[in-house]
Amino acid sequence: MDKILRINMGAEGGPKLIEDPLGDYEGLGGRAMTSAVVLKEVPADCHPLGEENKFVIAPGMLSGTLGAQTGRISVGCKSPLTGGIKEANSGGQAAQVLARLGYAAIILEGKPADGSCYKIVINKDGVSISEDKSLAGLGNYAVVEKVKAEYGDKVATISIGPAGEMKMGAASVAFSDMEMRPTRHAGRGGVGAVMGAKGVKLIVLDDEGMPRRQAKDVEAFKDANKRFVAGLNSHPVTSQGLPAFGTNVLVNVVNEAGGFPTRNFKTGRFEGASKISGETMAEQTAARGGVVTRGCHKGCVIRCSGDYTGPDGKWLTKQPEYETVWAHGANCGIDDLDVIAQLDRIDDDLGLDTIEMGNAIAVAMDAGLAEFGDGEAALKLMDEVAKGTALGRIIGNGAGAVGKMFGVENVPVVKNQSLPAYDPRAVQGIGVTYATSTQGGDHTAGYAVATNLMKVGGDVDPLKPEGNVELSRNLQIATASIDASGMCLFIAFAIMDQPETFQALLDMINAHYGYSWTADDWAEFGMQILRNEREFNKAAGFTNLDDRLPKYFKKLPLAPHNITFQVTDAELDSVFNF
Amino acid sequence: MDKILRINMGAEGGPKLIEDPLGDYEGLGGRAMTSAVVLKEVPADCHPLGEENKFVIAPGMLSGTLGAQTGRISVGCKSPLTGGIKEANSGGQAAQVLARLGYAAIILEGKPADGSCYKIVINKDGVSISEDKSLAGLGNYAVVEKVKAEYGDKVATISIGPAGEMKMGAASVAFSDMEMRPTRHAGRGGVGAVMGAKGVKLIVLDDEGMPRRQAKDVEAFKDANKRFVAGLNSHPVTSQGLPAFGTNVLVNVVNEAGGFPTRNFKTGRFEGASKISGETMAEQTAARGGVVTRGCHKGCVIRCSGDYTGPDGKWLTKQPEYETVWAHGANCGIDDLDVIAQLDRIDDDLGLDTIEMGNAIAVAMDAGLAEFGDGEAALKLMDEVAKGTALGRIIGNGAGAVGKMFGVENVPVVKNQSLPAYDPRAVQGIGVTYATSTQGGDHTAGYAVATNLMKVGGDVDPLKPEGNVELSRNLQIATASIDASGMCLFIAFAIMDQPETFQALLDMINAHYGYSWTADDWAEFGMQILRNEREFNKAAGFTNLDDRLPKYFKKLPLAPHNITFQVTDAELDSVFNF
Repeated sequence: MDKILRINMGAEGGPKLIEDPLGDYEGLGGRAMTSAVVLKEVPADCHPLGEENKFVIAPGMLSGTLGAQTGRISVGCKSPLTGGIKEANSGGQAAQVLARLGYAAIILEGKPADGSCYKIVINKDGVSISEDKSLAGLGNYAVVEKVKAEYGDKVATISIGPAGEMKMGAASVAFSDMEMRPTRHAGRGGVGAVMGAKGVKLIVLDDEGMPRRQAKDVEAFKDANKRFVAGLNSHPVTSQGLPAFGTNVLVNVVNEAGGFPTRNFKTGRFEGASKISGETMAEQTAARGGVVTRGCHKGCVIRCSGDYTGPDGKWLTKQPEYETVWAHGANCGIDDLDVIAQLDRIDDDLGLDTIEMGNAIAVAMDAGLAEFGDGEAALKLMDEVAKGTALGRIIGNGAGAVGKMFGVENVPVVKNQSLPAYDPRAVQGIGVTYATSTQGGDHTAGYAVATNLMKVGGDVDPLKPEGNVELSRNLQIATASIDASGMCLFIAFAIMDQPETFQALLDMINAHYGYSWTADDWAEFGMQILRNEREFNKAAGFTNLDDRLPKYFKKLPLAPHNITFQVTDAELDSVFNF
Repeated sequence: MDKILRINMGAEGGPKLIEDPLGDYEGLGGRAMTSAVVLKEVPADCHPLGEENKFVIAPGMLSGTLGAQTGRISVGCKSPLTGGIKEANSGGQAAQVLARLGYAAIILEGKPADGSCYKIVINKDGVSISEDKSLAGLGNYAVVEKVKAEYGDKVATISIGPAGEMKMGAASVAFSDMEMRPTRHAGRGGVGAVMGAKGVKLIVLDDEGMPRRQAKDVEAFKDANKRFVAGLNSHPVTSQGLPAFGTNVLVNVVNEAGGFPTRNFKTGRFEGASKISGETMAEQTAARGGVVTRGCHKGCVIRCSGDYTGPDGKWLTKQPEYETVWAHGANCGIDDLDVIAQLDRIDDDLGLDTIEMGNAIAVAMDAGLAEFGDGEAALKLMDEVAKGTALGRIIGNGAGAVGKMFGVENVPVVKNQSLPAYDPRAVQGIGVTYATSTQGGDHTAGYAVATNLMKVGGDVDPLKPEGNVELSRNLQIATASIDASGMCLFIAFAIMDQPETFQALLDMINAHYGYSWTADDWAEFGMQILRNEREFNKAAGFTNLDDRLPKYFKKLPLAPHNITFQVTDAELDSVFNF
C-alpha cells in the first residue's frame, strides 16, 4: 500500500494511468483516505456526474494484513444523492486483494464519452484497461460469471450493475464475496452512479503472487491480533448473536423496542415481524439445506452472513441484512421472506442500495402506486427500475425523488438519503446520527442503537434526549476511525464493552505502522476525518439546517410509545463541537 | 383593500373563513404583501406542500384604481420548485376585481384532506366556499367555461389545472383575461402546486356593484395618471414595439445579439429564428384574420398581447410570449409556430409554466427521450404530463427533475428553477439576475436585457462583466417596487428612460396613499422587499452558493461570441450589499 493508482478516464486518446507516491496521503486508509482525497481534490461545487468529481476506492489501513476483520473497503466521491461528501464501505474480498497489490487507493478521474464501458484488470504484472462493450447492461451476477470464465474464481471483483450505468441516485458498487458472488455493496449515496459516470463497469483484482502485508513489528502484531480475536470471540454479540442469526437478529429486538418503522415510518411495530425475523430465517435456511453462517471475506471471525436458500432448496441470495429485511419488509408492509430475498437478489444484481430502494418503494406505496404489503407489486416496481422506464428512474433515484415526483409530504430522508431501519422517535440516539452525519440518513455512521437498545458500551434511554447527543458524537468519532482502519464495524460491540479488546486494536495499528497511538490519538484521527467531511459539505453549501430530521418526526408521535423526536436543534448543532 | 381574507383549509369541519384587518401589512400590495406575509407567517423549514405553508394572493398597491397598467397580481408562498420564497405575478382581470372587492390579500392556510376540490366565490355579498368535485381534473379552459355558464362572463377567475392538482413543480396559477380565457399565469416556482395542496381549484371574483378604489387626492391622481399614460405612449418600446409585435419582437433582437439559447443552451443563435419571430407571428395572425393587438386587463394602454389564430382561422391561444416561443421553440430546436402555439395552449390548459416546460422538454431531448426539433415528440411529452404518467410527473416537475432522473449533467437551472430566454454568457447582466435573484432563474426579477441589448436606461456591454452587477442590483430593487405597485413591468422601459414618467408614477402613489415618496423612498421600499425575501431564503438554508449559475456557463463558451460567463463569484456576492 505504498502507491496510488490514478486513471484519467477523460484523457485524449483514452484512459491514462499514473502511479503516484502517497505523498500527503501517507498512512491513510479507508474512509480517512477517501475523505481526504475528496476534500483536497474535488471542487465542492462540481456536478457529481461531471469530470471534476473523483471516484476513490481505498482499502483500510490494516487490510491485506493477517489481522482479523480487516476486509472493509471504502468508496468515496461527491454524492449524486446527497450533494455532499460520501464514503460508502463494503465487505467482500477486494480490500485484502487490493491492499496486497500495493495500492492504497484507486482514483478514477475525468469523464469519458457517454456510453463508455471499461474494464480494469490489476494483477502482479500491472494494470490494464480496455473497453469491453460485452459487459454493457449486464447485471452484477452475469458480470461475475464472465469474470470467472476468463480469470478463474480466485480473483476479486468490483463492479456496477445497470443502475450505475443509468447513473441512478441509489446505485451501489458491488464487491464479490468469498464464494465469488456480487453480494457485498458500497450501497449508499449513489456511488455506483459516479463509477458509471467514469465509464468503468468492472475492476478485476488478482493478488496471486503478491505477499501479505507485513507489520513493522511482526510479533507484536501477531500477539495483538490474537488478543483482538479472543475479544471478539468472547463478546456475546460478535460470538453468538451475529453468527447464529446474522444482523437480522435485530428484527425482534427493534420491533420489541417499538422502533421498527412500519409502512413508511407510520408505526413502530410490525405485526408480521416474527415471520421475517433472524430466528425464522435461520431456521428456514437450515430446513432448506442452506449454510446458516458464513463470513464475507477472508479473515472474518464473526461470520454474520449465511445463505438464503429458496423454496426449491437452491441458493437464492446471501442472507439479507437486517436493514434489507426491514426496508423491503416491514417498511413496505411485506411479511414474506421469500419475496424479500428476491428483492435483495435483484438489488444486488442491478446494483442498488437496499435501504434506499425499500424506502423508495414504501413512499411509492404512500403515493398510491401500490398497496402496502403487496410483494408482487414491489417486484414489478423493481422490474421498472431494471428496464430504466421513467417510473424506474424515479424509484432508482430514491425515496426523495419519489416524494418529489409524486407530491408526497412525509418522506424519511436526511440530506436526501433514506433513513434506515430504526425509527428516530423510538431510538433517539440514532436520530441524532441520522440528522447530523456528514453522510445523510445513515445508521452505520454512529450506531447509537447499540447503547440505546442493546446496552452495549453503556445505557442511554432511547426515548429521551438526555445523553444521546454525547452518545452519537462519540460513536461518530469512533466509527470514522474504524471505517479508516479497514475493520468491520461489528468489532465496535467488543471494543466498546471490553477495554482490553480496544487496546488490542490500538496495538495492531501501532505494531503495523510503528506508531504509539493512545485512545486519544485514535479519537483525534476520527475527529479529523469528520472535520474534513464537514469542511467539504460546508463548501458544497450545507448549513446546520441540513443537520435536521424531516420536520414530521417532531410533530407526529410514533406508536406504541406515542413519542416524537425530542432532541432540540441547538443540541443537534452541538454534535460537532470539537 | 382594507382587509385580508384568511381561509383555514384544514379546519375541523371544513374550511373556516376569517376577515382580518391589515395590521402590520397596511399599505402593502403585490409582492411587498406576499413576501411580507410569507416571511412573517410561514416557517422557512416547512414542507411546501404541507399545512404550514401559506398561499397568498395580493393585488398591487394601485390595482382597482383608475390608474393605467395596474392589473398585476402577486402569488406568494414557499416554492415547491426552489425551496425558497416565491412571488409569481400575472396580468389578467383578477387584480382589479379583487382590489375593488376590498381585499388586500387572500391567504389560504392549513391543509385539507387529500383530493379536496374547493371553489371559492367572492362578490359584493361576501365569500362562499364549497366543495365542487365536478371541477376535479378539468383543464383551465373547461373550468372557465363552467364559470361562464354559472356566473356569466363579467367575472374574473383564478384557477389551477390538473398540474396543480397533481402538485407538479412547474404548476402555475391561471388568471382569466378580458375575453375570459385562462391565458394569464403566475407561472413560476410551482405556485399552482401549493394552491393544489390547499385543495382549492377555483376562485371566482365578481366586483359587480363595487366601486373603483379612490385616491386620497383624486385630482392629483388623475393628473399623474394622465402624465404617466402620456409617457407610456411616447416611449418607442411601450408605444410601438410591444403593441405591434408583442413580447415576441425579441426573437430577432436576441438572436441577432447571439444570446438566443438554442437546443438546451448549446449555441446562441437559432437558424429557424425568422420563422418564429414576432414579425412573422403578427403577419401570420393578420393573414389568418386574428386580432394582432390586445391588452390582458382593463386599463392597459400598452397592449402587448393579441390572438394566435390557427391554420383553420380560429382562435387557438393568446399570442405566445417571447419566452414561450423561445422555450418551446429554439430551445427545443422547433421552428414551427403552430406547434409552439399548441404547446402554449396545452400549458395554459394544464396550468404549467411555459419556461419550465420548454426547458424540461429540452433537457429530455438531451437525455435522448426525443430528437431536437421534433414537435410531435414534444406534444407527446405534454400528453404524458396531462395523463400524470411517471414520465409526465418528471417533465411536470421541471428541468432540474428531468436532469436528475435521467442523469443529464448540463441543466440550466438556478435554485432549481429554469433559466429563461436569454443566454447569460451573451447577456451577462441578466446572468447576474439569474444567479442572485431570490426567485431562482428569472428574467423579470431584474431585466438587464433592457440595458444590455435594447439600451434602455443606459448602455452596459452585454459581453463584459463591468457594470452588470450594479445594473442588475438597481433593476432588482426597482422591479421589487414595481411588482408591489401592481404595475405591469413593461412600464420600466418608459420610467427608466423618461424621468418625468417615473415622477408621474411616484405622484400616483403619493396621490393615492397621501404619501410624499421620493425616488429614494421608492428604492428603499424595493430594498426592503428584497431583504425580506433574502431573510426567508437564508432561514430556508440558502447560502451564497445558491447565488450561482450552473458551473458549465463558466466553462463552455457560447457561439457565436465564444464567450463564457465572466462575472466572478465575489461580484455576485456584492449584489445585495445594501
